[in-house]
Amino acid sequence: MKVIIINGPNLNLLGTREKDIYGNQSFEDYFEKLKDKFDLELEYYQSNVEGELINKLHEVGFSYDGVVLNAGGYTHTSVAISDAIAAINTPVVEVHISNIHAREEFRHLSLITKECVGLITGFGLTGYDMALNFLMEKK
Amino acid sequence: MKVIIINGPNLNLLGTREKDIYGNQSFEDYFEKLKDKFDLELEYYQSNVEGELINKLHEVGFSYDGVVLNAGGYTHTSVAISDAIAAINTPVVEVHISNIHAREEFRHLSLITKECVGLITGFGLTGYDMALNFLMEKK
Amino acid sequence: MKVIIINGPNLNLLGTREKDIYGNQSFEDYFEKLKDKFDLELEYYQSNVEGELINKLHEVGFSYDGVVLNAGGYTHTSVAISDAIAAINTPVVEVHISNIHAREEFRHLSLITKECVGLITGFGLTGYDMALNFLMEKK
Amino acid sequence: MKVIIINGPNLNLLGTREKDIYGNQSFEDYFEKLKDKFDLELEYYQSNVEGELINKLHEVGFSYDGVVLNAGGYTHTSVAISDAIAAINTPVVEVHISNIHAREEFRHLSLITKECVGLITGFGLTGYDMALNFLMEKK
Amino acid sequence: MKVIIINGPNLNLLGTREKDIYGNQSFEDYFEKLKDKFDLELEYYQSNVEGELINKLHEVGFSYDGVVLNAGGYTHTSVAISDAIAAINTPVVEVHISNIHAREEFRHLSLITKECVGLITGFGLTGYDMALNFLMEKK
Amino acid sequence: MKVIIINGPNLNLLGTREKDIYGNQSFEDYFEKLKDKFDLELEYYQSNVEGELINKLHEVGFSYDGVVLNAGGYTHTSVAISDAIAAINTPVVEVHISNIHAREEFRHLSLITKECVGLITGFGLTGYDMALNFLMEKK
Amino acid sequence: MKVIIINGPNLNLLGTREKDIYGNQSFEDYFEKLKDKFDLELEYYQSNVEGELINKLHEVGFSYDGVVLNAGGYTHTSVAISDAIAAINTPVVEVHISNIHAREEFRHLSLITKECVGLITGFGLTGYDMALNFLMEKK
Amino acid sequence: MKVIIINGPNLNLLGTREKDIYGNQSFEDYFEKLKDKFDLELEYYQSNVEGELINKLHEVGFSYDGVVLNAGGYTHTSVAISDAIAAINTPVVEVHISNIHAREEFRHLSLITKECVGLITGFGLTGYDMALNFLMEKK
Amino acid sequence: MKVIIINGPNLNLLGTREKDIYGNQSFEDYFEKLKDKFDLELEYYQSNVEGELINKLHEVGFSYDGVVLNAGGYTHTSVAISDAIAAINTPVVEVHISNIHAREEFRHLSLITKECVGLITGFGLTGYDMALNFLMEKK
Amino acid sequence: MKVIIINGPNLNLLGTREKDIYGNQSFEDYFEKLKDKFDLELEYYQSNVEGELINKLHEVGFSYDGVVLNAGGYTHTSVAISDAIAAINTPVVEVHISNIHAREEFRHLSLITKECVGLITGFGLTGYDMALNFLMEKK
Amino acid sequence: MKVIIINGPNLNLLGTREKDIYGNQSFEDYFEKLKDKFDLELEYYQSNVEGELINKLHEVGFSYDGVVLNAGGYTHTSVAISDAIAAINTPVVEVHISNIHAREEFRHLSLITKECVGLITGFGLTGYDMALNFLMEKK
Amino acid sequence: MKVIIINGPNLNLLGTREKDIYGNQSFEDYFEKLKDKFDLELEYYQSNVEGELINKLHEVGFSYDGVVLNAGGYTHTSVAISDAIAAINTPVVEVHISNIHAREEFRHLSLITKECVGLITGFGLTGYDMALNFLMEKK
Repeated sequence: MKVIIINGPNLNLLGTREKDIYGNQSFEDYFEKLKDKFDLELEYYQSNVEGELINKLHEVGFSYDGVVLNAGGYTHTSVAISDAIAAINTPVVEVHISNIHAREEFRHLSLITKECVGLITGFGLTGYDMALNFLMEKK
Repeated sequence: MKVIIINGPNLNLLGTREKDIYGNQSFEDYFEKLKDKFDLELEYYQSNVEGELINKLHEVGFSYDGVVLNAGGYTHTSVAISDAIAAINTPVVEVHISNIHAREEFRHLSLITKECVGLITGFGLTGYDMALNFLMEKK
Repeated sequence: MKVIIINGPNLNLLGTREKDIYGNQSFEDYFEKLKDKFDLELEYYQSNVEGELINKLHEVGFSYDGVVLNAGGYTHTSVAISDAIAAINTPVVEVHISNIHAREEFRHLSLITKECVGLITGFGLTGYDMALNFLMEKK
Repeated sequence: MKVIIINGPNLNLLGTREKDIYGNQSFEDYFEKLKDKFDLELEYYQSNVEGELINKLHEVGFSYDGVVLNAGGYTHTSVAISDAIAAINTPVVEVHISNIHAREEFRHLSLITKECVGLITGFGLTGYDMALNFLMEKK
Repeated sequence: MKVIIINGPNLNLLGTREKDIYGNQSFEDYFEKLKDKFDLELEYYQSNVEGELINKLHEVGFSYDGVVLNAGGYTHTSVAISDAIAAINTPVVEVHISNIHAREEFRHLSLITKECVGLITGFGLTGYDMALNFLMEKK
Repeated sequence: MKVIIINGPNLNLLGTREKDIYGNQSFEDYFEKLKDKFDLELEYYQSNVEGELINKLHEVGFSYDGVVLNAGGYTHTSVAISDAIAAINTPVVEVHISNIHAREEFRHLSLITKECVGLITGFGLTGYDMALNFLMEKK
Repeated sequence: MKVIIINGPNLNLLGTREKDIYGNQSFEDYFEKLKDKFDLELEYYQSNVEGELINKLHEVGFSYDGVVLNAGGYTHTSVAISDAIAAINTPVVEVHISNIHAREEFRHLSLITKECVGLITGFGLTGYDMALNFLMEKK
Repeated sequence: MKVIIINGPNLNLLGTREKDIYGNQSFEDYFEKLKDKFDLELEYYQSNVEGELINKLHEVGFSYDGVVLNAGGYTHTSVAISDAIAAINTPVVEVHISNIHAREEFRHLSLITKECVGLITGFGLTGYDMALNFLMEKK
Repeated sequence: MKVIIINGPNLNLLGTREKDIYGNQSFEDYFEKLKDKFDLELEYYQSNVEGELINKLHEVGFSYDGVVLNAGGYTHTSVAISDAIAAINTPVVEVHISNIHAREEFRHLSLITKECVGLITGFGLTGYDMALNFLMEKK
Repeated sequence: MKVIIINGPNLNLLGTREKDIYGNQSFEDYFEKLKDKFDLELEYYQSNVEGELINKLHEVGFSYDGVVLNAGGYTHTSVAISDAIAAINTPVVEVHISNIHAREEFRHLSLITKECVGLITGFGLTGYDMALNFLMEKK
Repeated sequence: MKVIIINGPNLNLLGTREKDIYGNQSFEDYFEKLKDKFDLELEYYQSNVEGELINKLHEVGFSYDGVVLNAGGYTHTSVAISDAIAAINTPVVEVHISNIHAREEFRHLSLITKECVGLITGFGLTGYDMALNFLMEKK
Repeated sequence: MKVIIINGPNLNLLGTREKDIYGNQSFEDYFEKLKDKFDLELEYYQSNVEGELINKLHEVGFSYDGVVLNAGGYTHTSVAISDAIAAINTPVVEVHISNIHAREEFRHLSLITKECVGLITGFGLTGYDMALNFLMEKK
């Protein structure tokens, strides 16, 4: 079973950036723990470029068994990523680290949730763990 | 560790009601499976009355270790339930069976998410499982 | 043929309350006339509690032949009642005594009409009569 | 007692047009049945021209005992028809064949209901029958 | 100098219709007084049909010296009449008998004022007199 | 002179809940002080159920001399309570402990103020005292 | 018969300011022509201060026979001037030199028209002439 | 193959009206060129009356092979024409001469596009040519 | 203890203006009664000029013990007065004579409440009495 | 004559993606047919990256004779692409394969149409053909 | 070269008022520093009265070489000041001390920026310095 | 002291593009002048790709002393760039060449200003000079 975690803009700064909101652990460190825990062929991809996220979704979207996607700031503005999710076959689970509904109003709207299987938001990095759990159980 | 699952209006019809959206398993049956799986003191409460949901939140909200709440239709209209969650100490995890962001527009707004730890939506009954997992890991 | 008329909040005050809008006949008196006129097993239920209206809809909604529903003030605010109507099998006819479109703007929107067979509004108590007529003809 | 049924744009195509929404009976056939059933001097008028509907309302509006009006698409856009109803003395009952609140959002708003006695929507052709019944009982 | 007064829908009922708003003088009677008072070739046209108002504007709009237009209910809904005024050369003065800004909110917006020389509203039938005065002085 | 104070959802937690907003005195304690201070037949009722608040308003609304109402979270969502106030004869004074206009935007709108005598908001528990003062002076 | 013309902010610059919109005649010069033409006790007042306009309205509003008011930019923002017009007895005619509905959108809304007899907009300085004519005829 | 071009309000003035927007060629002249170019049974109809446009759509809509429709100002306001297009079988191609999205905001919304095959806007009279080309290729 | 009552625009007409809304007692007479009743150094200031109200707030805002403010029409439009209240130290209590939430919609929004201690609205002149009571108790 | 077709995000999946909306032909195959049909120097470019589309527009925008642009999901969100079209000299024709006005509401708004010559939407791949035809005729 | 700094409401309290937002330096002290630094005939004016700010703009607006304007709270509400800037010849530079876009939403909208040369916001008192620099360089 | 100027989409065309809005000087030429004038380690970066702008902000945002950012069209649409500014430590000054508040309405909203120190808009290329001045003085 092959699953990829795709992180969008500014998530490369995790552990450095606004630690009161996002915690002080880098995603790379956390990713190692996930790989240890889950019996999966697990990959990780991060980009700040909207179009590269789309490219990656196209690349994996017809052969992988699952995508865990945190599209960061593009979540609220990208019709193009939303269209990409609709265009591929692999199920996508949307994750946000912070509770986007408890923050500024422009973060309450996600353009992509409607094309995903579902949304997990507010559980910190544990959200990625929950998403992988779901993909494994669902198989 | 003591956790309660609280379901709001119309969720008593699960397994009977609109099966294409909600599936054909009754919550009572599913609850038995959850009790078997998790090493928790696990309770279940359902009511169609907004105020009774508030009463129950008050009752458990200063002594239990977690609440898993699916407020059904009150999710989108109840300031009073949102206030109740803010008023208690026990962490509340919001769950929805269907992907509320992929349905009618009035279901996209949740008045209560901002007072909860986080939101899990779209994963079917498995969402309750994920919420319990989170509460256990977080302990 | 078994039909129930369900009245929501404040309709217990009919005949007492704002007579220029609602007339000065109590619903109980009018109900007797309806029972005389229609060859139906006809019941009446009234509650001011949103959740009890839902309970009653669940109770009758899989065995009765029709519901005539005037949800009063909940008409404009209750997603939960709307969901209850969608969840049951019995056809529901929505009735309002006054012409809700000729009153304050917040009364122009009904959250429940879309789940009902149809809407009858503005014909005074006669609206209930018309609803029963429709249910009988439709049989 | 003299009553006229006035149908607006596209209702001349009834029985031909979108049969899943409007049924497959022509209004002319149905009108014959209504004439048989009701002991009324009953007329029928149809036009696709907004101003001709106004002309007809003026013509009948000071001498007839009732108007049953289905203004079709003009329902949602015509201040002029709404003004015409307000200008005349004859009571007007608004009818729609389909449940306009269960269709596209622009069909939820009626500019004319507030000037009518009331609204009957969603009961198919039977709505005209119900309107005539009301006008007769009210006499 | 050749001027025409064009009245839109329902203004044929002046003197009959809602007298508390529009007064009890027919426009025909008032028009005779205007003809006596002003040294003008003065015509009058009324129609309830939007397109006929446009036809008339086209017919006079390249040769007459002025149009006084009360478009009635079409004032608030007709892009087509607004386009017709923009398309012709003759200056158009917009008149309303009642103060449209002191009535229902949907009457506050005029789609046509922006294409007219100006607007006179709220002065009763005297508004037509004022419009003619302006057109004569302007010559 | 007979007056009742009616408190809505979550106000039973006063003194326990969010003390920075609502203070740390329970309403029961405060109520004893009010009874001592005012020469009134003074009652107290609290419920978290919207419909029970309506029931109580109906029960007292034709015989008591005044109601002091803090509808809590239902203030912003309940057409049904607003209708109940309109339906009864006893004057109702609306009170809020915190300044609802200085909090989240959804708390700025009260659906019930328009049916009450007036509103007192932001003066802490003293607001109840002021309301009783008004009712006594007004007598 | 005693009438006053009251001009609001920036109208003291008439003849100097944006001549393509407002023309190149000072209001003082034009006022002399009006005094010659009309057999009236005619006064003129201008202020850039909102409150001084209110003071003047109070001063004349219980004894003069008419006010012609061009409130300039306060037209679109002043509830206080609108209240002042409602508070006095003298009829007020609203005038604007340019066609405010053909300019920026924020100029389409007048907060004061609803309290005036009527509105004259778009006829240049002639609008004042028309307003005085109306006040004289109405006497 | 039988195709009709239907033009709505004010398009009879083409070549006369606002030449900077619409060009200075009359539609009649242009129509002759189209007839020469296309091997089609090609008709032309123009009316300023909304209802007559609907009548024509009904008349041709069950036997012709295509309609090219420029509904002029009714494009933005007519639910009735939109319903007529939905009611007929013949495919309708919407054309506008100017780029309606580069003009005033109220021209950005077309109520009828959703019922047409597609929209061609901004290409001058050539848009009609493109529409006919499409209808021929599609055959 | 030193307190000032500050009244905004048009409140100088109290007792003269719209008596059905505001009563027929002048504020000066009422003020004498307040001075007799309360053991306070009590002042009164009224102005129709927004900036003068700000000047007065600055003047008293660092030395007085309380301000009772009825900003009249400026309540709904003045960011500058709101800023002035935020800028001073003296607590300000907002009072309105009529129930502003039961009047026109533009009166429902107060720009200044959020900077005041609280709001008292709808209790007639008694509202000033209640405000003074609060300031004394709070001392 | 030199023309380029530029396709935006997800259009590389044409023929693979949602075939009911977009058809099952790849754009590469279709492009070969266009090259055969048109006597043009015809190029094709596709990218999922918003900024690369802008780069390409800059590159061709001062020397090519025409651009046919389908900006995909960026159509509805990209001010930057709209600015790029305004910044270059080459005329741009906007094309969409599906009828974007008949799909979800967020697809009804195009930020770029106002800077293009015109828009062709709903005609399937034939839309590109029509655009090329227009560019050739226009030369 | 003659330049004036005009400050609006509440800016006279600078150094006293909300020091966390506006700093603790009085404008008078800062103004002395500016006079020392710039080789300009530099004046300063402050008023809390909207109309007096307009008077001052008129007074200097046809002879001075520049105006630096901080209209305080009137920035967000005054069409009249915006009109005054448009009416004069002297260029006006808008300055705000705090970053108005990082504060409450009603401070995000400036009615006057569109009539000014430009806007400088968020740089503390240094913003005035930057504005003077610009006016000098521009000369 | 190390500062970078970052320009967003289409600003590479400066001097070529819409010269009436942006002037006819290329940014490269202007940058040379800035380097001569300021005693700073000054760099320049431009990209049309949203994500590359984010990459650059990350790269410089923990070591440089200042960023001057003109995000071009992304200003109005990019949550991701706004998040990037919030995530870094270096202060960012937002600059726009034209007065964005005097242009189309969609340019009035900046998503990034709230995360910047402040905004300078409307002063042409001089705005960059002013921004650098501020960063130097602030040091």
